[in-house]
Amino acid sequence: MKLLRFRQGDLVRLGVMDGDDIVPLDMIQDRYPTMLSVIAGGEAALADVRSAASQCDERISLSSVHLLAPIERPGKFLAIGMNYRKHAEEAKKLGIKVPEQQFWFNKQTSCITGPYDDINPGVTEKLDYEVELGVVIGKPAKGVSEADAHNHVFGYLVSNDVSARDWQQHSPTFTIGKSFDTHGPIGPWIVTADEIENPHALGIRCFINGEVRQQSDTSELIHNIWAQIAYLSTAFTLESGDLLATGTPEGVGVARNPPVFMKPGDIVRCEIDKIGAIENTVIESATSVATE
Amino acid sequence: MKLLRFRQGDLVRLGVMDGDDIVPLDMIQDRYPTMLSVIAGGEAALADVRSAASQCDERISLSSVHLLAPIERPGKFLAIGMNYRKHAEEAKKLGIKVPEQQFWFNKQTSCITGPYDDINPGVTEKLDYEVELGVVIGKPAKGVSEADAHNHVFGYLVSNDVSARDWQQHSPTFTIGKSFDTHGPIGPWIVTADEIENPHALGIRCFINGEVRQQSDTSELIHNIWAQIAYLSTAFTLESGDLLATGTPEGVGVARNPPVFMKPGDIVRCEIDKIGAIENTVIESATSVATE
Repeated sequence: MKLLRFRQGDLVRLGVMDGDDIVPLDMIQDRYPTMLSVIAGGEAALADVRSAASQCDERISLSSVHLLAPIERPGKFLAIGMNYRKHAEEAKKLGIKVPEQQFWFNKQTSCITGPYDDINPGVTEKLDYEVELGVVIGKPAKGVSEADAHNHVFGYLVSNDVSARDWQQHSPTFTIGKSFDTHGPIGPWIVTADEIENPHALGIRCFINGEVRQQSDTSELIHNIWAQIAYLSTAFTLESGDLLATGTPEGVGVARNPPVFMKPGDIVRCEIDKIGAIENTVIESATSVATE
Repeated sequence: MKLLRFRQGDLVRLGVMDGDDIVPLDMIQDRYPTMLSVIAGGEAALADVRSAASQCDERISLSSVHLLAPIERPGKFLAIGMNYRKHAEEAKKLGIKVPEQQFWFNKQTSCITGPYDDINPGVTEKLDYEVELGVVIGKPAKGVSEADAHNHVFGYLVSNDVSARDWQQHSPTFTIGKSFDTHGPIGPWIVTADEIENPHALGIRCFINGEVRQQSDTSELIHNIWAQIAYLSTAFTLESGDLLATGTPEGVGVARNPPVFMKPGDIVRCEIDKIGAIENTVIESATSVATE
């Protein structure tokens, strides 16, 4: 299933895709008011969603609504750096040491925005894109083996790890430059894990104004998703709804020669096979941009 | 006021301290079911709390209840590294470069635990302590000046930035080693900002089994709280309830000669003048430890 959140007027609703239309899930909103509650509900919740969708005759055209980020605010939004072989090589040329262990950093959850929402550069002068496969944790994971890790995945989505390269370099932790407000577009929906037979065989692409900038395949991940879940869950609990961005392939703007950054008016499109695409427009810097 | 959360039987309640006793806030729990809702409620919520407390005759002995972390789960839990002069010097001796900019990293919010809860070492063999003054954000802050920053502070608490030094070194981002489950004790309550005339003149101490290990004063901060809020809010919005750990003074175990780490049975006490103390016992490594 493709699960999504959308706004109609003042109303925020959950839905599931049926072809190009949305089937709203109002029937079960008392039990599942948020996407996080659906995810935490596990298999029983998914059965309820299926049942509600099959009993609902209403269909809403996708183009008539405003899609929201398919998860409200996860507890964690973690991203791994230098996790595609060729991207690690281009980063190395920029003086970034290729790590021996998995290299994780946080995106603050307040940076999350919708799949078609605007990107506000804020105070950066080096705005860059990074298409990434996003993994949504389902059943909480602590001390999970690689072999068992797939049982803890709820679903997948497309993520753009928008990066302020100048601010990213303020500290080796990346904290300040990876989390500007609106720099975490995700979506357009969560594709449940049962629909993705092999998440390590998906074409992944990023376009600026229609021109391809990143093009790879998730088979190129250095640390695959199961290794990521195993590693993180050795240290701490991954909880329902936690979001992992699994790395970006080569082709980021900062590594081009000469470097090219995004500017107001640019349209950045990130797409992944079997999941879908998100598309965001860079606007002129604004003090603040509403995200929901 | 000192605002706190506590458990009695299966019930989680909010309260405010009156001398050594707790005044429960059940009277306003419909409007303020969580500490985050009190914080988001601003001055009006604080007035409601004061009014409810003054109308309540019930008093509960502090020793009869189990104190919980005074905030449930903030949206962000950020901590700044190398922010006391002498601690930056001891870190430098360990090969950690003293940063030019503020050096922020995340503690995952899932590591938060109560002021007297146990610390589970998990898989680390180098468990260390770091007493820190914690700042709770009140009114959301974006693009705030240093001069205006104090208007965005809801209150203060004591924080122990428990650190797995071996895992901390896995990557320069600190992500994996700073967030083991139970490695974020906070409390014992939030002291509202109006009660702390100058947060940059507070004695701050950490003891292991009664022996003083860290002893300093918040006047020694390199980047003070107002500079911290100004810097972070240049990039992203600090939201109500977000938690900032403002740095630890010299004396951490890893910087001693030879290094000394915490072991099962150790009791670590962190205290800050005018706020209070938290005290946590290190247990044998366990697969998981309940935190609420």
